[in-house]
Amino acid sequence: MQAGKPILYSYFRSSCSWRVRIALALKNIDYEIVAINLIKDGGQQFSKEFQALNPMKQVPALKIDGITLSQSLAIIEYLEETRPTPRLLPQDPKKRAQVRMISDLLASGIQPLQNLSVLNQVGKENQLTWAQRVIAPGFNALEQILQSTAGKYCMGDEVSMADLCLVPQVANAERYKVDLSPYPTISRINKSLLALEAFQVSHPSRQPDTPPELRA
Amino acid sequence: MQAGKPILYSYFRSSCSWRVRIALALKNIDYEIVAINLIKDGGQQFSKEFQALNPMKQVPALKIDGITLSQSLAIIEYLEETRPTPRLLPQDPKKRAQVRMISDLLASGIQPLQNLSVLNQVGKENQLTWAQRVIAPGFNALEQILQSTAGKYCMGDEVSMADLCLVPQVANAERYKVDLSPYPTISRINKSLLALEAFQVSHPSRQPDTPPELRA
Repeated sequence: MQAGKPILYSYFRSSCSWRVRIALALKNIDYEIVAINLIKDGGQQFSKEFQALNPMKQVPALKIDGITLSQSLAIIEYLEETRPTPRLLPQDPKKRAQVRMISDLLASGIQPLQNLSVLNQVGKENQLTWAQRVIAPGFNALEQILQSTAGKYCMGDEVSMADLCLVPQVANAERYKVDLSPYPTISRINKSLLALEAFQVSHPSRQPDTPPELRA
Repeated sequence: MQAGKPILYSYFRSSCSWRVRIALALKNIDYEIVAINLIKDGGQQFSKEFQALNPMKQVPALKIDGITLSQSLAIIEYLEETRPTPRLLPQDPKKRAQVRMISDLLASGIQPLQNLSVLNQVGKENQLTWAQRVIAPGFNALEQILQSTAGKYCMGDEVSMADLCLVPQVANAERYKVDLSPYPTISRINKSLLALEAFQVSHPSRQPDTPPELRA
């Protein structure tokens, strides 16, 4: 099926890259990382070479099976369809829908509003307030939704795509000093997930491009 | 399978609601609309009743088969899994991935950056410039991606989920006076899609809550 090892274009701190790294780890897929530094050289994602891979000039991108994909959830859904074990979407259509709903809440409803390019536009002195103002309503909503879906993880007791979106977003929230005390369910699930090996090996503090001072 | 007719909570002008209306029309699913006016009464999405349906306080939300779903792409994927005809995702996994990539580019990479709550935050005098600045890079990327995926529509000659995201985003771009001349492929596909009945009956100008002065 594969034309060589998959190549993940990734940045250690990118929360969307982290989602895909968790999926690759959970599914035990061997891959290579090419680091794209979003800060250095004015942003390596703007190079001609990288734009040819992903015209959106964002990480992650994944070369796999002879194609190059971008958009983390589209990548994860592709991995799920072509490498189904272990599953990241439940079998029941209603539960699958709820996993996708939570994933999209995080991936469309929160993350884009506090990504690097938006924060650059709002200006350095406003970044923290802006990020807090967009993360808090999303987490309020998520905390409420989790009351009816969560077990040990976001959807019952099995790790799902929703969890792959949750952990990186909580890390962003911590980085922007969001008060997490109103979100006990989010915090509890995040802690349980961080204890799993796939979440640890994919962690920003353990990537080939992690700067020495941030290494775990 | 259904517990009564599905109910769509929708706002005529919401591009995310429009995506779901197109899906429902294409799949010939009979449904009722409950209009949620995002402007009136300070925003009806903030009412206690609506928050119980969607804690994100956004449209669309769909009551169907005994559950309530939010997030337009999660809703469309659920409809696709439970009412598969006509299909909105190709059969081939690589093409499915590309359809999801284009859908996410529009639904995570562009739309959230120019939605109502963000535009309210940037202030009235900056809204047009802000919207143009976030739509243009996304359309540049999409125009390039479509060179290798498009036929008559975004993915070959069959209408897919990507098309359901494209048309409402082009409408937003027109509303914010984005110059569409650099995007001949996007413009051509948009025009072909707007000729289809499902895109017409779901159009913002033909909804029960469309104000008389904006009706087609």
